[in-house]
Amino acid sequence: MQNNSLPNFLKKRAFLTPDRTAIYFHEEAITFKELYHRSFKAAGQLQALGIKKDDYVGVLLKNHLDTVIILFALQLLSVRAVILNNRLTSGELVWQLNDSKAKFVILEPAFSEVEMALKAGVASLRCISKDQMLSSKAEDPIIQEEVDLSNVCTVMYTSGTTGNPKGVMQTYGNHWWNSVGSALNLGFIERDCWLCTVPIFHISGFSILMRGVIYGMPIVLHESFDVEKVLFDIKNKQVTIMSVVGTMLSRMIDTIKDAHLPEQFRCMLLGGGPAPLPLLQSCVEKEIPVFQTYGMTETASQIVTLSPEYSLTKLGSAGKPLFPAQIKIELEDGTIASSGKAGEIIVKGPNVTPGYLNRPEATMEKLRDGWLHTGDVGYLDEEGFLYVLDRRSDLIISGGENIYPAELESVLSGHPNVADVGVTGLEDDRWGQVPIAFVVKKDGADVSVEELVDYCMSRMAKYKIPKAIYFIDHLPRNAAKKLLRRKLREWLSEGRFE
Amino acid sequence: MQNNSLPNFLKKRAFLTPDRTAIYFHEEAITFKELYHRSFKAAGQLQALGIKKDDYVGVLLKNHLDTVIILFALQLLSVRAVILNNRLTSGELVWQLNDSKAKFVILEPAFSEVEMALKAGVASLRCISKDQMLSSKAEDPIIQEEVDLSNVCTVMYTSGTTGNPKGVMQTYGNHWWNSVGSALNLGFIERDCWLCTVPIFHISGFSILMRGVIYGMPIVLHESFDVEKVLFDIKNKQVTIMSVVGTMLSRMIDTIKDAHLPEQFRCMLLGGGPAPLPLLQSCVEKEIPVFQTYGMTETASQIVTLSPEYSLTKLGSAGKPLFPAQIKIELEDGTIASSGKAGEIIVKGPNVTPGYLNRPEATMEKLRDGWLHTGDVGYLDEEGFLYVLDRRSDLIISGGENIYPAELESVLSGHPNVADVGVTGLEDDRWGQVPIAFVVKKDGADVSVEELVDYCMSRMAKYKIPKAIYFIDHLPRNAAKKLLRRKLREWLSEGRFE
Repeated sequence: MQNNSLPNFLKKRAFLTPDRTAIYFHEEAITFKELYHRSFKAAGQLQALGIKKDDYVGVLLKNHLDTVIILFALQLLSVRAVILNNRLTSGELVWQLNDSKAKFVILEPAFSEVEMALKAGVASLRCISKDQMLSSKAEDPIIQEEVDLSNVCTVMYTSGTTGNPKGVMQTYGNHWWNSVGSALNLGFIERDCWLCTVPIFHISGFSILMRGVIYGMPIVLHESFDVEKVLFDIKNKQVTIMSVVGTMLSRMIDTIKDAHLPEQFRCMLLGGGPAPLPLLQSCVEKEIPVFQTYGMTETASQIVTLSPEYSLTKLGSAGKPLFPAQIKIELEDGTIASSGKAGEIIVKGPNVTPGYLNRPEATMEKLRDGWLHTGDVGYLDEEGFLYVLDRRSDLIISGGENIYPAELESVLSGHPNVADVGVTGLEDDRWGQVPIAFVVKKDGADVSVEELVDYCMSRMAKYKIPKAIYFIDHLPRNAAKKLLRRKLREWLSEGRFE
Repeated sequence: MQNNSLPNFLKKRAFLTPDRTAIYFHEEAITFKELYHRSFKAAGQLQALGIKKDDYVGVLLKNHLDTVIILFALQLLSVRAVILNNRLTSGELVWQLNDSKAKFVILEPAFSEVEMALKAGVASLRCISKDQMLSSKAEDPIIQEEVDLSNVCTVMYTSGTTGNPKGVMQTYGNHWWNSVGSALNLGFIERDCWLCTVPIFHISGFSILMRGVIYGMPIVLHESFDVEKVLFDIKNKQVTIMSVVGTMLSRMIDTIKDAHLPEQFRCMLLGGGPAPLPLLQSCVEKEIPVFQTYGMTETASQIVTLSPEYSLTKLGSAGKPLFPAQIKIELEDGTIASSGKAGEIIVKGPNVTPGYLNRPEATMEKLRDGWLHTGDVGYLDEEGFLYVLDRRSDLIISGGENIYPAELESVLSGHPNVADVGVTGLEDDRWGQVPIAFVVKKDGADVSVEELVDYCMSRMAKYKIPKAIYFIDHLPRNAAKKLLRRKLREWLSEGRFE
């Protein structure tokens, strides 16, 4: 009889260390006790609006103290938050809200322009404005005193290589084990303070909130990444840990120039794909302790981490799996690869999602015998360090955002004058990668680059819009007509399309 | 589908941080890699002797590096260790080995004198001498790559107030969650180093071994508590944390006199019942950071801990339950007490035992709806701090060892000339408490104190022998003939028997 329940995380934390600072946001600093009281009140307001235990509720909110309060209010009620990427178009949002069967969505007033589209697109959806909600009448909320670790806490959508986005279910246990695995790796000291400039709607940001409550650690929350503000707060709020993607780190290095980060700063947690060598070398010179990581929405953030002492000797490696987690490399015939051999990265651990919301088939396909088949290609060296060769084969990571070529191809191929389309990523100094599209026009038809960009613009988030579109006669496909995206990348690296 | 398995703890630790020191013992220091290799070899030797997965194997070993290796070897094979208190008589050992249905016992050569008694008392028991085992031929062991957190790792016997000792099953999960709960409370820093002078056969010592492997932290292991050696190693091995009972702490304070502990020392984890005020005041004066705790074999060590900042303002409190755990006070009518009201302490959490080995009835009696009924009496103050009034009502804690009055009473009442007997604890400067017996002789029969002491001596561990035996005409019993041990304590405190 294994006991799978824990006390409600925020309530327990507020009980244990009521007076420690929980969140710094702009000029405000609130303690865990205050965070609990405000979340408790918001829970009563949400309940009064008809939201109840086990509901799926869309959340379309920016990085803001109110968002933290609302997310924890949902946890107090044991409501599942379907956390929506703020940068999606209303069409994409409608798709995710329908797919998750959400009956409510909580919106930033700034997003009110999408409200009409959401109401039109999602049957019986109730849109709740954040400001209205926070000033509405509160009931006495029914607080979930215990959380079942196998219960779903959050849902975040991620697009596979095969097209439609899927809702990744993240349980309380997934978040708990990620926090614990990270603490066992990085250690946890009383003066720790984590700076969050990455979006809370990503697992990278959301996981910081969970760690804050589980560890009893203050979070410095920024609305977005602003390099000056970051450097100011690292110094003034005594930040010790920060989560970054490569582009953020290189802008920080450009800005600090010959200076150093304050001494108390102990960990730069770097996600979003392997970092380029010159960046890592600059970090060594400036004594910035970079911990490279590998993780995904399905693993509730980092599952593999490389300590700074290896950042140059194991250059390009993502490190070793955190204590609770395991990694293997699976070959195409289903056998496990020996060291040095590349294959699909498969991962296991209590931080790994139980599956995709309302998609038993996709779940069965990706999760087999407890092992998540990531679709990423990599190998383990003789000491067990992971090297990721290709994230999800063709995934484009642009400024920390995942862009799935298949999704862009699907949109572009919807244009009446497009016969065929292939998308791949191009290395970019600023964004890491940007998407590039290769288009075959229909016989006798014509279409301009501008027309196609406009076409995309109305159908997908701005960061997904191809940075270049090239017209060609036919796409490279194998005998089974499978698109050879690798070939597209070769064309780009050969400079054939500059 | 909650994933309840983790990688084998020691194997994973040796993989993650192979070169960190795992154990300091005398002049030796071994790394996690070496600990793994030696445990791996010992696992092969144990397997060659016929020990296999899921067996229950008695372990009668002292605090020694070999013991650590053997205990982890058993974990590598997923064998359940029935960890025996070294101070028990052979009769007591026979009882526990029979009760646990152990087919093997691994013995210290120093304990060979009990070997004959064990063989005679336990059917088909195989006694394995530690030295012989460690020099025997090894097979290629079948290592358990994963541990199921609900699987039993260790069994430790504890006597209830109602007589017979019961085998407390401690799962891998119990040990894991205890380690994690402790880390979330105390923090965990890279330079941490834990000094273990308490017995490994107690949960207080065993839990330190588990934390070492789970955190990747060195343990300084002593054979026993030697105050000079302790102070020497705190300084020279840079110890940061130490587990103590009150008597150990007061001897340390007497010895260091006006000096202070080195600055890196950050936590004196104090178990074994509330500490007396003068001791706590001395610790404040000497800036010794004392963390008072409450815990038991059934909770895999501490479940409630008081931080040093509260040690005087919340004098006598054991603190608040660790993050994963919960506490309530239950009144006799089964309702939950409000703050300030005393009742039975009931606890819940993933560190709480799933029950008693081969005793479904005792398990059902003590574990109801996931809550362990400790039998201890206490209350929570308005801020939720626990005050333990009476450990297991009548439990005597002497030098950190639990002595159960019912057990002594049961032995003494076996003497042909004894009609009735009641045992209680008396406060003692050196041991905290010592057991005192009140005996009613049979009509017309006679027996001396010396005779009864001799009688006890041959039947139970020395530390359990009553420090005084008083003859009286009749015992204080209530209407239901239940012994009123509280009355015995009153007699002692009134000085009626000095």
